Amino acid sequence: MNAPTRGASSRVLLQKLRDVLASREGGQERLDIIVRLIAETMVTEVCSIYLRRDARTLELCATEGLNPDSVHLTRMRFGQGLVGRVAEQGQAVNTADATRTPGFRYMPETGEEIYSGFLGVPIQRLGESLGVLVVQNKAARKFSEDDLHGLEVVAMVIAEMAEAGAFTSTGDMGALAPPHSGPVFFRGIQGQEGVAEGVVHLHDPHIVIANPVSDDPDAEHARLHVALHKLRGEVDRMLDDDAVEDTGEAAEVLQTYAMFARDRGWITRIEGGIGEGLAAEVSVEKEQSSIRQRMSRMTDPYLRERFHDLDDLSNRLLRLLSGQRHDRHDIPENAVLVARNIGPAELLDYGPNLRGIVLEQGAVGSHAVIVARALAIPLVLQAGRITREALDGDTILIDGGEGAVHLRPEDSVRTAFREKMAMRAEAQEQYAALRDLPAQALCGSTVALTMNAGLMADLPSLAGSGAEGVGLYRTELQFLVRSKVPRRAEQAALYSRILDSGLGKRVVFRTLDIGSDKVLPYMRRTDEPNPALGWRAIRLGLDRRGVMRMQVQSLLRGANGRSLAVMFPMVAQFDEFVTARDLVLKEVEREQSMGHTIPEKLEIGAMLETPSLAFAPDAFFEMVDFLSIGGNDLKQFFFAADRENERVRRRYDTLNVSYLTFIAQIVDRCNRHKTPVSFCGEDAGKPVEALCFAAMGLRSLSMRPASIGPIKHLLRQCDLSEVRTIIDAACASGAQSVRPAVEGWLTERGIAF
Amino acid sequence: MNAPTRGASSRVLLQKLRDVLASREGGQERLDIIVRLIAETMVTEVCSIYLRRDARTLELCATEGLNPDSVHLTRMRFGQGLVGRVAEQGQAVNTADATRTPGFRYMPETGEEIYSGFLGVPIQRLGESLGVLVVQNKAARKFSEDDLHGLEVVAMVIAEMAEAGAFTSTGDMGALAPPHSGPVFFRGIQGQEGVAEGVVHLHDPHIVIANPVSDDPDAEHARLHVALHKLRGEVDRMLDDDAVEDTGEAAEVLQTYAMFARDRGWITRIEGGIGEGLAAEVSVEKEQSSIRQRMSRMTDPYLRERFHDLDDLSNRLLRLLSGQRHDRHDIPENAVLVARNIGPAELLDYGPNLRGIVLEQGAVGSHAVIVARALAIPLVLQAGRITREALDGDTILIDGGEGAVHLRPEDSVRTAFREKMAMRAEAQEQYAALRDLPAQALCGSTVALTMNAGLMADLPSLAGSGAEGVGLYRTELQFLVRSKVPRRAEQAALYSRILDSGLGKRVVFRTLDIGSDKVLPYMRRTDEPNPALGWRAIRLGLDRRGVMRMQVQSLLRGANGRSLAVMFPMVAQFDEFVTARDLVLKEVEREQSMGHTIPEKLEIGAMLETPSLAFAPDAFFEMVDFLSIGGNDLKQFFFAADRENERVRRRYDTLNVSYLTFIAQIVDRCNRHKTPVSFCGEDAGKPVEALCFAAMGLRSLSMRPASIGPIKHLLRQCDLSEVRTIIDAACASGAQSVRPAVEGWLTERGIAF
Repeated sequence: MNAPTRGASSRVLLQKLRDVLASREGGQERLDIIVRLIAETMVTEVCSIYLRRDARTLELCATEGLNPDSVHLTRMRFGQGLVGRVAEQGQAVNTADATRTPGFRYMPETGEEIYSGFLGVPIQRLGESLGVLVVQNKAARKFSEDDLHGLEVVAMVIAEMAEAGAFTSTGDMGALAPPHSGPVFFRGIQGQEGVAEGVVHLHDPHIVIANPVSDDPDAEHARLHVALHKLRGEVDRMLDDDAVEDTGEAAEVLQTYAMFARDRGWITRIEGGIGEGLAAEVSVEKEQSSIRQRMSRMTDPYLRERFHDLDDLSNRLLRLLSGQRHDRHDIPENAVLVARNIGPAELLDYGPNLRGIVLEQGAVGSHAVIVARALAIPLVLQAGRITREALDGDTILIDGGEGAVHLRPEDSVRTAFREKMAMRAEAQEQYAALRDLPAQALCGSTVALTMNAGLMADLPSLAGSGAEGVGLYRTELQFLVRSKVPRRAEQAALYSRILDSGLGKRVVFRTLDIGSDKVLPYMRRTDEPNPALGWRAIRLGLDRRGVMRMQVQSLLRGANGRSLAVMFPMVAQFDEFVTARDLVLKEVEREQSMGHTIPEKLEIGAMLETPSLAFAPDAFFEMVDFLSIGGNDLKQFFFAADRENERVRRRYDTLNVSYLTFIAQIVDRCNRHKTPVSFCGEDAGKPVEALCFAAMGLRSLSMRPASIGPIKHLLRQCDLSEVRTIIDAACASGAQSVRPAVEGWLTERGIAF
Repeated sequence: MNAPTRGASSRVLLQKLRDVLASREGGQERLDIIVRLIAETMVTEVCSIYLRRDARTLELCATEGLNPDSVHLTRMRFGQGLVGRVAEQGQAVNTADATRTPGFRYMPETGEEIYSGFLGVPIQRLGESLGVLVVQNKAARKFSEDDLHGLEVVAMVIAEMAEAGAFTSTGDMGALAPPHSGPVFFRGIQGQEGVAEGVVHLHDPHIVIANPVSDDPDAEHARLHVALHKLRGEVDRMLDDDAVEDTGEAAEVLQTYAMFARDRGWITRIEGGIGEGLAAEVSVEKEQSSIRQRMSRMTDPYLRERFHDLDDLSNRLLRLLSGQRHDRHDIPENAVLVARNIGPAELLDYGPNLRGIVLEQGAVGSHAVIVARALAIPLVLQAGRITREALDGDTILIDGGEGAVHLRPEDSVRTAFREKMAMRAEAQEQYAALRDLPAQALCGSTVALTMNAGLMADLPSLAGSGAEGVGLYRTELQFLVRSKVPRRAEQAALYSRILDSGLGKRVVFRTLDIGSDKVLPYMRRTDEPNPALGWRAIRLGLDRRGVMRMQVQSLLRGANGRSLAVMFPMVAQFDEFVTARDLVLKEVEREQSMGHTIPEKLEIGAMLETPSLAFAPDAFFEMVDFLSIGGNDLKQFFFAADRENERVRRRYDTLNVSYLTFIAQIVDRCNRHKTPVSFCGEDAGKPVEALCFAAMGLRSLSMRPASIGPIKHLLRQCDLSEVRTIIDAACASGAQSVRPAVEGWLTERGIAF
């Protein structure tokens, strides 16, 4: 493009492309016209378009100058050859001597060996390579910067056209399938068990750009500036909002937003794209692509975060420009939420009616995941590039337990999936029939099954699941989803409502369990080498008594005369419990002296989560009103294996002989002192594990509501003393885990598990 | 400074300053002349110099224009007022209206309220503020960029003069004490116990700059370029050096060096300073100051690291320029090494003859600290700004256990310190007398005391300490101090030499315990949320069998027919031991089939570091040849408290009732199966702890060599069954720790501990 002004020259070509888009030609014909137009305008001997066939393969889809017979035959992997390198790295390659450039790979069928000058640019949308646009010359000279720049703008328009389905054809073999069609399978990792069928609801839906090219840059400029003005207003309003007052981190993010929204560099680059003939939206996307490209190369978490903010801001701007806004409350009834990532408060906003959630990112321990688990919504994490494949309204099947997602599934998959769901539903009905029966084993022993909760939304399950109470109410969840510490009155009102919804059953409140992976948004994250072994839970509570005292006061006020059960997390030695208990008793006295009603019955318990507490002096077991074994943490300290670390989390089985022996020792010790003991944690919700715990003597298990049915069903079919015999034999045999023995025994008896 | 060329004008002033420095005036007179000279040259109404009195206080030391009576009376804290702000932030303040500038603070005694124009620049050396240089005018106009720049150059020279003691006076009240004189106390944190008296040996000594001003910029340029040429040569030679081949990280650092050494921006800025009349060294330091200033504001660890490299390079350049090189091997006999930080290999280079080590930085778990501990050299970490206070040859006293450092101590401190050392020496003599006696308690029970080792340098202690063998040889230390994996032949030769030095006593080799805080320089650090609970030790060994197999082969070859005892770290379940043991047995078979001699006796043991192993099936206790309780890790998993985390590491006492009960349970279980069991870890080296472990039934303890004497001495005075009675009573009483009871019992009997 050797025109006097670069913008003017690229605008001419873009206008021609727009005409192609407006034409009634088929997809292949459009591609053929485009390569010819580019070759003519840029006066190059070759112009070719390679498009992606699947996630990692490129195909030559149109060419002017290379052997036409190689179209739809020549293919390469991402990273292979110069073309593959452009797609892989998302960066242009410009060389005067292609054959001597590292990575060159000779494709004899194309006849390209005679061309020396090579310029390839990625065809990308939002940082994702959809293909490669190449021009080649026999002359061994590099293309100019202007050529490169012009070709990038053209590639951007081609990307939008590809995304809009402009190149799909019906019929012939080489045709490209339209994007966003056909089944795609994603293998993510387990977030929360459960299966669901529904329709995709994108958290941030794609903006549909009808016309990527504009012929009136002035009008586009004006649109951009109106949208930018609105954007600044939005951000400033958020900053002024009362809700962000005092909240260090959130305010910092918003300030970054406000800064970016006025960033000259960013705006200038967007204006540049408009000047070259792009529609404002496409120009914003072009800049966003290069931001994402840079993001993907960054390893520094702080910078990534800042770039992520800029990406969010681009999304807002796009939505303002296109007028395509998203109403979070207008979601279909059977929605499966699909997002790159989501915050806990936003997720709560959607409410508990989502059928499922699929995230592209999302760490196992993130707050959103904690909330999704609390809501018992099936959840798959790290599901590839799903937000770029899925469209609002697409059919989707997810299996949280297996981390499997079927997007636009074939009928056969859907049928199999529905059968699986029907089986589960059938089982659920079976479980529902057991709802009012006790979890009594064949030997006559009864196990109390209670549920875990942490949000108001959990409590309706109390009636439906047949739980005998709430064995673990995690109070920190209410703190995690807020931007500042809830005041005492708010907390008290909340605890009161929980007891109101508790149907008079026992609710065990666990005091704040924060630190480690659960850091409150308004808490300064301390830099600990091993947060799981750090300053957390009761340690933090005892060192910052104010928060603990306020929570205890709120619990006493919330109980308002009713029975109250409180337990402290992560108690590692006797004195910690004594101190915490004294604090509660002192508050009771204080409430009484102020004339407030005190609970008719007060139980003060402890979580046994560190191995040390199992060896506490007898005096502890006599003082504590009840103990709850916190299986998640206890297991990770017992084996010294982090449950959030993929490299070690599956190394040690819960039914490992050592672990069961330890549990039995704890139960025996509690029995000797008549200390009530229960077990909470994920393992309590797994049928075989629950059965083994019961066989080791545990008579109280707390789990997520959905597990109560299956576990009751299994327990009612087994004789615990028989199971214990099997376990003891396995232990004596030197086996690593009792699982094979117990599962074998169940199978022999035809008991499903 | 409104002269035509900025360099020329500042040069004139610098020449005048040089004359002041060369004069025989006293310190105060020099200051007075300087402020007058600056005010004259810059045509300002006021010029003042504020210098640091202590770490956080500035004092007006000379003024032209302000009330002369306020000199040596007006003081401010860092951060207070505009002057304090300049010192605090290390950045200039230039304002037309000082009284309205945020942070302005009125000092009535100075009469400065009538001056509006204010320009203050920091007087700093190597990023540290030594004072502030201020010019003021009545006119409400900002000073020019040239003024600012010129004043910064002058401030640099004043900094060098201050550092060289040019402003110190004797006698009168207001006089400044010479720098680097008088006692300073630093409170750091414990790195390695032990006390020492010696003389400072700086790892990177200050460059002494005799004349900060030059009158021949061309000559200085030439000197700079000769030095830069040498620097590039040095760095390139290091890069070519065989030793860095293949070593990712080290090579990367060197490449950064090589890049910086050719960086135009850096060199241009240094040349600029020379152009303005500074000596080449001062100009390098000026640039280094601004690098350090920027470093202190950076939070990104990657960028900090890169800036740190640039800082190192500046140091090299300074040394080349000044010709003041440092011979690492020419150190005084009673040297206490003082450094900002140091690498493990550099530390080993100094050898085991250092009396002590003091680091400004240094994390508890860093490799250098591991090496210093292995060498048993008293070590204090995070000792304030000591490298900027200490000079080579200064007297220094350190107490590693208390993290205390006395630099240039007063006589009374030195006397008290010497008494403390004499008492320790006396005790040592007492212990030496016990060397050949057994550690037999009054009740007749004998405890085997062995030593921990990890370096060849440790082994001479075997004879001197009276250790009965090496209970724990940490093989990873030899890996940590190298830049690449030692080959099999090297490893075998090393193990052979260790056995040679072992006087025929038993040496227990622990296989590589890496991961967590011990990451080899040539290993990619994996990003784990809780490395202590992560992929480490035997987990890593079993997943990367090649390294483990090579080490086992090397041990077998090194033994060359002699007895061999090998143990595996972090065994958490039976099968891990079975797999590792099978690997050893297979290698023995292989060696045999190749005709090599195999050990006459082979013991294969395990470290008990996770609570789970204490509950392993009986079959494990029967199979394992011996067990060693790894107290450091075991305690941190038992209480879920990271021993590297200051917030929790002191929360749980080793003599906590729960922990001792657990230890007793392990010992009982081993006794039932006749499995030999010992205890290693820091706690075994503490007398009261060791006594209690012995009372709980442990008959073998491994510790650092220096602890053997004190512990033998204590054990020989006690009846273990009496101690056990005391412990049991404390446990039954509900006490948190048995420490008060046991220490009380010892005190009653007049037994020192």
